[in-house]
Amino acid sequence: MASTTSIIQGGFALSSFTARPRRMVVVRAEAINPDIKKDEPKVVDSVVVTELSKPLTAYCRCWRSGTFPLCDGSHVKHNKATGDNVGPLLLKKQ
Amino acid sequence: MASTTSIIQGGFALSSFTARPRRMVVVRAEAINPDIKKDEPKVVDSVVVTELSKPLTAYCRCWRSGTFPLCDGSHVKHNKATGDNVGPLLLKKQ
Repeated sequence: MASTTSIIQGGFALSSFTARPRRMVVVRAEAINPDIKKDEPKVVDSVVVTELSKPLTAYCRCWRSGTFPLCDGSHVKHNKATGDNVGPLLLKKQ
Repeated sequence: MASTTSIIQGGFALSSFTARPRRMVVVRAEAINPDIKKDEPKVVDSVVVTELSKPLTAYCRCWRSGTFPLCDGSHVKHNKATGDNVGPLLLKKQ
């Protein structure tokens, strides 16, 4: 998917000025994490793998999970809304 | 950091039209993953924790690592450039 830059603000879409057909334009990502622990300079999480309780545990990589650092499926909604393709990291006990 | 929307393209900065002082404006993230496995509908990685070789292994959550899914420190450059605060997931053997 070609990526160009435009702003969508109050219906003003730069792309309407160009002859190209109107299509959803993906704004190049700047920040990735909108809300998680924004008071911390860097959000690093650790997992002691021997303490994993379930055979399979999914960890979030889309920074939109309500149960961060664990995955809650929020990447599905994010991918659908943006055309992105992010998904979790799965930890398997064996 | 307040987040409003603008485009920075060839020096054209919308914010110069408003009376507010010029400052770097963060574009609200749309896509998170610019380049990794874009031919796949969803990028999910699995780790069998018993196969971890090192006492500590860092996994990328910024989608900019050259050694994805492993972390290569690319989040430092990303955070510096965008004011973000993302960091890796650390897997510890004990």
